[in-house]
Amino acid sequence: MALPQSPLAPESVARLPAIDGVRLATRACGIKYRGRSDVCLMAFDPGTAVAGVFTRSKTASAPVDWCRRALVGGRARAVLVNSGNANAFTGRLGEDSTAAIAEATAAALDCRPREVFLASTGVIGEPLPHERILKAMARLEAGLKPAGWRAAARAIMTTDTFAKSATRSAEISGRRVTLNGIAKGSGMIAPDMATMLSFAASDAKLPQALLQRLLERAIQRSFNCVTVDGDTSTSDTVLLAATGKAKHPRVPADCRLDNPLVRDFARALDGLMMDLAHQVARDGEGAQKFVAIAVTGAASAAAARRIGLAIANSPLVKTAIAGEDANWGRIVMAVGKAGERADRDKLKIAIGGIELAREGRRVDGYDEGPIAGHMKGREIDIAVDVGIGRGRATVWTCDLTHGYIDINADYRT
Amino acid sequence: MALPQSPLAPESVARLPAIDGVRLATRACGIKYRGRSDVCLMAFDPGTAVAGVFTRSKTASAPVDWCRRALVGGRARAVLVNSGNANAFTGRLGEDSTAAIAEATAAALDCRPREVFLASTGVIGEPLPHERILKAMARLEAGLKPAGWRAAARAIMTTDTFAKSATRSAEISGRRVTLNGIAKGSGMIAPDMATMLSFAASDAKLPQALLQRLLERAIQRSFNCVTVDGDTSTSDTVLLAATGKAKHPRVPADCRLDNPLVRDFARALDGLMMDLAHQVARDGEGAQKFVAIAVTGAASAAAARRIGLAIANSPLVKTAIAGEDANWGRIVMAVGKAGERADRDKLKIAIGGIELAREGRRVDGYDEGPIAGHMKGREIDIAVDVGIGRGRATVWTCDLTHGYIDINADYRT
Repeated sequence: MALPQSPLAPESVARLPAIDGVRLATRACGIKYRGRSDVCLMAFDPGTAVAGVFTRSKTASAPVDWCRRALVGGRARAVLVNSGNANAFTGRLGEDSTAAIAEATAAALDCRPREVFLASTGVIGEPLPHERILKAMARLEAGLKPAGWRAAARAIMTTDTFAKSATRSAEISGRRVTLNGIAKGSGMIAPDMATMLSFAASDAKLPQALLQRLLERAIQRSFNCVTVDGDTSTSDTVLLAATGKAKHPRVPADCRLDNPLVRDFARALDGLMMDLAHQVARDGEGAQKFVAIAVTGAASAAAARRIGLAIANSPLVKTAIAGEDANWGRIVMAVGKAGERADRDKLKIAIGGIELAREGRRVDGYDEGPIAGHMKGREIDIAVDVGIGRGRATVWTCDLTHGYIDINADYRT
Repeated sequence: MALPQSPLAPESVARLPAIDGVRLATRACGIKYRGRSDVCLMAFDPGTAVAGVFTRSKTASAPVDWCRRALVGGRARAVLVNSGNANAFTGRLGEDSTAAIAEATAAALDCRPREVFLASTGVIGEPLPHERILKAMARLEAGLKPAGWRAAARAIMTTDTFAKSATRSAEISGRRVTLNGIAKGSGMIAPDMATMLSFAASDAKLPQALLQRLLERAIQRSFNCVTVDGDTSTSDTVLLAATGKAKHPRVPADCRLDNPLVRDFARALDGLMMDLAHQVARDGEGAQKFVAIAVTGAASAAAARRIGLAIANSPLVKTAIAGEDANWGRIVMAVGKAGERADRDKLKIAIGGIELAREGRRVDGYDEGPIAGHMKGREIDIAVDVGIGRGRATVWTCDLTHGYIDINADYRT
C-alpha cells in the first residue's frame, strides 16, 4: 500500500492550531497495517455539543449504527477511530466490538459510553480485533494532547496518499473562534456522502440543534458534491464537535443561518468542509487531474447537482479527461443520462473557459490550441449551461486512470 | 481501432438464414473509417410492421428523434444505419441530415420517407457527412440481397471487436417462422437501453401493437439488464420488423403474451434479444470476464434489477473481478448504495455457487480454493439473496480493466 503521493495534493500542509477543549492521541495497534499508527482518540472536555451526518447506505457499518444512536444525546466526550478494518457486515460481532470499544473509552475518560463516537474504515466483512484497541486504551488516554491534529489525520488514512486537514477561524459576536478538521478517503467516495470519514471541532459555543443544521448545510455544498467512483461507503461519517470554550455570548438554537451571529461561523465551516472535500477528490485513487464541473441554468439546484454528478461519475467522461481529450460529446451524453430536464438545443458547454458547444451543436471554428493546453494541466474546468432555469451547482471529481484499476484490482491481496 | 477480439466472444458464429421479405446491403462510404463498410441498408417488402425502443437520454440523437416520429406510422420499408458518426448534438444540421437520408432512401425504394428508419453510431457532435451516404444509395439499393446479415453486423460496428448476430425459430399456429438479429455496442452501454443499436426481423405476421408489446417485454429482460459502464448513449435504438410473409393465421393485436398463439414467438424473441445483449456485454470495452449477477429475495423484480445494476455498475466490484479477487465486501457496499430495501442481517452472497456471507457476516471456514478457481475463469457468477421478498432479476456485465482505460482515454485521437 505504499502508493506515491497524488500529484494533486495541496502544495503546503495546513498548520492546525490547538483548540481549547480538544485533545488528541494516536497509537499503532496493528489492526491491519504494520509500522504505522492506526487508531486515533479525540477527547473533548465536558459540555461539548456534537453534530453528525452519516452514509445513506442500507448496509451501514456497526460504528455508523452506534453513532446514530449516540447522536440522540447530542453530547460528545470522545471520538475513537480505527483504520484498516471497517467493522462493516460483521453482524453481531460488530455490535459487540462497538460496545466494547465505547465502554473502554468511556471508562478511560470517565464519561458515559453514549458520549463516545466511533468510526472504522478499511476492509469490509472481517471481524474487528477490538481487543487490540482496548489494550492500547490506557496509553491512548495518557498520550492525549492538544497538538495532535496532524498525527490524527495520518492515523485515519487507508489508501490515502496524503493526510488531509484544514483550519479556519471565524468571529462570533466579535470573539474569535477556531475550526479544525481532518478527513480521509480516496476510493468508495460518492454522495451521499463523499468521504469515508471526517472529524471537525471548534471552540465555539453553539447549541446542538444549530450545530446540526450548520453541518448539514455545509456537507450539502461540499462532501455531497464530490465523487471519485460513485461508490457509496458503508461507513461514511462526518462529525463536528463544539467545545463551547470560546467566550462569545450565547447563540440561540433557532438562530437563522444567515443571522449575523452565526453567519461568519457558517462561512468558515463551509470553507473548512469544502477544503477537506476537495482534498478527498484530489486524492481520488489513481487521480492525475482535479476536475470542477459547474452546472448552471438547470431546473433547480438539486437538478444541477444531479447533472453535475452524472458528468462526474461517467467513466467515459473521466477516461477522456485522463486521455487529455476535450471530448464534450461525452458530456452531452452524461447530461442526457442524468434524467433531469434538459434541452439539447439550448445546451452550452465550455472547457477551460472556452465555449465548445452551444444551441445543440459544436461551435464552429473554436480554437483547439488553448483547450488542448488546458486539458494537459492538473486542474480541469468544465462548465455546462442547461439553458432552461436558474438552478446551479458545482461538483468536483478526478479522472479515471490506470492507477485506479491498479489500486482496486488488488486491494485485498 | 484495430483491437484484438474479446476473449469472451462466442466460440462459433451464428449462421443467419434468409428471411422472406428482408434484403440487406452494405457499403464503405468513408464516413470516418477507411477500408471497411460503414453503411448498412435493410429493405423490407411492403406490408412490414415495425416496433422500436429507444434511449431514455434527454439529449437523444437526430436519428432517434426521427425514428420516434416514424414509429407512429408503424410500418417500415427500410432501416439505414451508419457507423463512425452518431449524428448526435448536431443541431439543425443533424435534422437536415436525417431528412436527406430518409428521402433518398425512400426514393430508391419507392416508399415514403416515414417508412424509413435511421440509426447512426460513433462520435458525438460532428456533423454527419450525409452526402457520402446519398452518393452510395444507388449501389446500396442495387446490392440488396437476402443473405447479407453477416456483412450488416460488421458494417454497424464501432469499437466492437466482433460482429454480433443471432437467430431463432418459432412456431405460430404450427407454422415455422424465423427471427434474425444483429447488434453493436461495447462502450456507453447501460440501461436504458444497454446497446447502442440492434436490428431484428422476422417473417412472422404480427400486428404492430402486439409486436411493440413483445419487443418491450424482451428488452426489459435482456438489453435493459446489461451494463458495461453505466453510460447511457444518446443513440440507443432497437428495431424489430415483421414482414408478414409467413403463412400462419392472423394473430389479434390484443393477444396476451402468454397466449399459445404467440407464446413460442415470445420465447424465441426473448432468447434472441438475450443472446444479442449477452454478446454486447461480452464485448464490453476491455472486458476479460463475463459476469452474471442473480439477485433474489428483493422487495420486487424492479428492486432486484436496481440492486443488480448497482453491483454491475460499481467500479469497485468490477475492478475486484478484474483482479480475480472475490471481494464480497464491495458487493455488500453496492447493495447498500442501490437505495432499495435491504436488511444487512439477512443478506446472503455466493460466488461461483459457494456461499461467502450470510446473516450479515462472513461465513466462517468456507473453502477459498474453489472460489479462487472460479474467479480465475472467464465466466463469473454472483448470487445475492436480499432475504426480504420474492423479487428476482439477473443482470449481466463485464469487468473493468486497463483495456477500458486504454480504449477510452484516446478514442477521438
